Amino acid sequence: MKAITLLTDFGLKDPYVGVMKGVILSINPVARIVDITHEVEPQDVTEGCFLIEESYPFFNKGSIHVCVIDPTVGSDRRPIVIEHDGHFFVGPDNGLFSLARDARSRIYQIENKRYMLKNVSGTFHGRDIFAPAAAHLSLGLKPSALGRKVHDPVLLSDLHPVIKGRTLTGKIVRFDRFGNALSNISIESFKRFVKERPFQIRLHAMQFKTLSASYFEDPYTCVVGGSGNLEFGIFKGNLAREKSIKKGDEVTVTL
Amino acid sequence: MKAITLLTDFGLKDPYVGVMKGVILSINPVARIVDITHEVEPQDVTEGCFLIEESYPFFNKGSIHVCVIDPTVGSDRRPIVIEHDGHFFVGPDNGLFSLARDARSRIYQIENKRYMLKNVSGTFHGRDIFAPAAAHLSLGLKPSALGRKVHDPVLLSDLHPVIKGRTLTGKIVRFDRFGNALSNISIESFKRFVKERPFQIRLHAMQFKTLSASYFEDPYTCVVGGSGNLEFGIFKGNLAREKSIKKGDEVTVTL
Amino acid sequence: MKAITLLTDFGLKDPYVGVMKGVILSINPVARIVDITHEVEPQDVTEGCFLIEESYPFFNKGSIHVCVIDPTVGSDRRPIVIEHDGHFFVGPDNGLFSLARDARSRIYQIENKRYMLKNVSGTFHGRDIFAPAAAHLSLGLKPSALGRKVHDPVLLSDLHPVIKGRTLTGKIVRFDRFGNALSNISIESFKRFVKERPFQIRLHAMQFKTLSASYFEDPYTCVVGGSGNLEFGIFKGNLAREKSIKKGDEVTVTL
Repeated sequence: MKAITLLTDFGLKDPYVGVMKGVILSINPVARIVDITHEVEPQDVTEGCFLIEESYPFFNKGSIHVCVIDPTVGSDRRPIVIEHDGHFFVGPDNGLFSLARDARSRIYQIENKRYMLKNVSGTFHGRDIFAPAAAHLSLGLKPSALGRKVHDPVLLSDLHPVIKGRTLTGKIVRFDRFGNALSNISIESFKRFVKERPFQIRLHAMQFKTLSASYFEDPYTCVVGGSGNLEFGIFKGNLAREKSIKKGDEVTVTL
Repeated sequence: MKAITLLTDFGLKDPYVGVMKGVILSINPVARIVDITHEVEPQDVTEGCFLIEESYPFFNKGSIHVCVIDPTVGSDRRPIVIEHDGHFFVGPDNGLFSLARDARSRIYQIENKRYMLKNVSGTFHGRDIFAPAAAHLSLGLKPSALGRKVHDPVLLSDLHPVIKGRTLTGKIVRFDRFGNALSNISIESFKRFVKERPFQIRLHAMQFKTLSASYFEDPYTCVVGGSGNLEFGIFKGNLAREKSIKKGDEVTVTL
Repeated sequence: MKAITLLTDFGLKDPYVGVMKGVILSINPVARIVDITHEVEPQDVTEGCFLIEESYPFFNKGSIHVCVIDPTVGSDRRPIVIEHDGHFFVGPDNGLFSLARDARSRIYQIENKRYMLKNVSGTFHGRDIFAPAAAHLSLGLKPSALGRKVHDPVLLSDLHPVIKGRTLTGKIVRFDRFGNALSNISIESFKRFVKERPFQIRLHAMQFKTLSASYFEDPYTCVVGGSGNLEFGIFKGNLAREKSIKKGDEVTVTL
């Protein structure tokens, strides 16, 4: 029993997510479908990119992750499926899948009409192309049956922090519901850079010389949050609002 | 395995949708439940009406669609089940099911207390009447076991566009999350009216002489959206807000 | 087939609920997971407390209810599982489970690392401790296998209405999506107090001498809502907003 996960910017007001589930269940009536989120900021491919990498490892190998943040639906951007780390990823080839950067990923274009809905619209490939492809994969279809191999997937630049001398520079990439600000600095890249040396983390005027173990420890904290990345919060408050933090704001780690 | 879908105006803040699912699973523990949306504008039966017709065809025949937009719950409005197009629809008889207009639909009042919760409240028939009825239907119960036949279902007027001479007049009936404005003019009724002739579509001061294939093509577009109806959008923007479009605003197609 | 329900203040914007589901399914791939709500007001343990008691009875005995409103995650507050009324409750020991007050409840601390994720973070016990514990319970694990017995669970005071002479005093504890104001006065405690005598219910300047059967009956109503408690509403309107009602506002029943 392999889960199909859904991650979109469709919101939950419209019937679109439900309709995608109807399409999946009409192909595989026992598919197990899990929502990751449908509240990605509309058309923010970068945010989607981080959410995918943050969530998929908690699912079993073989899971199928349908991700639709798709501002150029209807253009000639390709629909693709990626096999990566034992998981399958289905969605538009617009940079959403930065994990395609990994040379071991196998990527295929979805072009076999047998695995699409009969009428493919210009506006809703989540329903017409991606949901059916995922449902067929969940029934055991090989990704290579969907279409030709892709060797030049679209990849976003500027996703990862940059090291210059004694400073690692990252940025804020999303906010959670509590107003905590999440950076693109993973605990692994942080540790690799800092080793055992003293450090100072800066976001706006805030400075941190230690990582907190939880939001409970201090009024302002820099913790390794649920995302596995450095994130910034304020106990029982909304940091993003109180400190006017914006996406893209610089986070530096200085030795 | 037949899906039970849920479409309500309950929102997701309250526990009511979860409680309905508990009731369903306590009757049929292996029921497969799919949310269509719970963010219908509170008490907007017309919006619900369009959402039902837009979403149900993507589910397998035999699916059971529980729809609860129910401003007069507790009055003498009837709880009903409709068999239509191979699907079942469960909810209040208040106009929500315009598909009952089809003479081939079979409609039954839900009155057999054996298939309700023991205590039926005056405020929450979704839990007490509709969820149990749907669960029993998913176990194979015949709709006629629920109660007597209904021959005079409540039907909304003004749902469909009107043709006068060389003009077809419809209206905006809902907005999606992106602020696209959806009309009640289906592509089928549009094509039947226009045939191969030149046309002009108007919404406020906007005029369109072609349908776009996607939101990508032009700054302002009129497309056949995911709903199957004419809808109006602005690339990477929120049309409803930028042009102050309201529900009920007139959309005309002139030859 | 026992359901696992989820009730949190995580919201649906972040991937955290989806990630918890991934963890559950990676342990029990056929678990049936139901969302109660994820829109509890952030860190409002009292609101969570009422939502739990309002929703769990509609699920089958044996169901497992994961509840995470957890402002002190990362402190020394204990993770617990409670066996109560044939149901299991999993979450933080911070007062969220007032049903632990019942002397028949059996409570265990979750401390057996075998049933946690390998890396337990300081910020996300929903994923690292509570979801795995629930998944193992759904596979038949006995709660006592999780850790030692707890005899002194944290309990909230001020949850229940108070009787002084001829007045029962309760309060508003939450608002639903429609702006109806829900009190902590259950219909049972109301009836026990009032018996057959005349009464007057007061909230701000509003006075009620009868309970309505539904929101349909009067412009302003006091009904026994879906929650089983007295709640206050206005027909087709938002009472909370129109009358500036706040959480904690006093509701009195006077004989």
